[in-house]
Amino acid sequence: MKIGILGTGNVGRALADGWAAAGHDVVLGSRRSQDLELRSELEASVGDRVAVADPGQAVAGADVVVNATPGTASVPHLASLGSSALAGKILLDVAVGFGEGVTLSHPVESLGEEIQRTFPDTRVVKTLCTIDAGLMVAPGSLVGPSTLFLSGDDTDAKRTVETLLNDLGWPPESLLDLGGIATARGQEHYSLLFMGIAEALGSYGFGIQVVVPTSTQSL
Amino acid sequence: MKIGILGTGNVGRALADGWAAAGHDVVLGSRRSQDLELRSELEASVGDRVAVADPGQAVAGADVVVNATPGTASVPHLASLGSSALAGKILLDVAVGFGEGVTLSHPVESLGEEIQRTFPDTRVVKTLCTIDAGLMVAPGSLVGPSTLFLSGDDTDAKRTVETLLNDLGWPPESLLDLGGIATARGQEHYSLLFMGIAEALGSYGFGIQVVVPTSTQSL
Repeated sequence: MKIGILGTGNVGRALADGWAAAGHDVVLGSRRSQDLELRSELEASVGDRVAVADPGQAVAGADVVVNATPGTASVPHLASLGSSALAGKILLDVAVGFGEGVTLSHPVESLGEEIQRTFPDTRVVKTLCTIDAGLMVAPGSLVGPSTLFLSGDDTDAKRTVETLLNDLGWPPESLLDLGGIATARGQEHYSLLFMGIAEALGSYGFGIQVVVPTSTQSL
Repeated sequence: MKIGILGTGNVGRALADGWAAAGHDVVLGSRRSQDLELRSELEASVGDRVAVADPGQAVAGADVVVNATPGTASVPHLASLGSSALAGKILLDVAVGFGEGVTLSHPVESLGEEIQRTFPDTRVVKTLCTIDAGLMVAPGSLVGPSTLFLSGDDTDAKRTVETLLNDLGWPPESLLDLGGIATARGQEHYSLLFMGIAEALGSYGFGIQVVVPTSTQSL
């Protein structure tokens, strides 16, 4: 699958590496792709299998576009590419926007919903935003299974994203489809609990597992 | 320990029963304690060991006051008792306030923080708000351990609340102290993810377990 990743921070790099290792054709889009120093740093950090290009090029050939830009900048960043460039594509949205202190930039409508509303012809799937970059691509490094959530209005798009998550090491039984894109609120708001847990543990390296009653099938 | 519970919904009743069964002296406070029909319904539902009284009486003799009133009504309800009635006491705050649709009544400052700010002489501990009433008092009914969180500025108060949680069946290793009362935001905001998971599972009967790396001690 052709995957264009927007955002070259820890998340974008980790996902680029993970999907390239699984055999996908990955382009990492950077606005500073002509900055030779950054470009060589990026190329060194993600390995040979990932191409570095400007965001427009990363999106142009992609079946799936990944939004790994900062949540507060995501909508303007995506808008700068033009909605026609994103039309029909799956947009896998990983971003969360933070405000001042421990607050969200989107305390009511979620970022995922705003993106879907702004780009109605794009199929937005929110996922992966409840876990740190390193664990996104190494879910098996935890002592037990943890759960990953999906939110999106387009069922086929969610099924495609599930196969991409499987490719990162998330088994099908670890994935929980929450429903439409409005359920992205839950995923994004969990960030505040995530930060509290991280502070308590002194590490971002943890997941959460949904634990069900003994009378129900395990998740 | 003398426990005064404010709020006679599912949460108040479940906790009253659970702590009474553990040998505590529990008073369930209802504004309609003189309504004989409600009183007999309450008495039938919580069993002989729990007394039913008006909220002022429930609080007056209590070492620990439990706020299980609706989150949108909690501050006025507590204020109606007078801050001197709550001064020095531990207030175990379970409440979450919801707004229109899938939103919180406290999207920035949490309810727990507002209560602590409003009653500075009361020792507020937020906990138990990440799980359904039935599981609050039956954590062992899940297929595996789940994690419960605590937030509060007063460390001694949190240690006391931990023993009360142990009495409900939560083992010490299932409890995670997130830090000061500001971390109540994480617990309250998790409600939106809780609702999404509940919708997906078709049940409120689940917990979440924090899952750590293989190199770290299990939580």
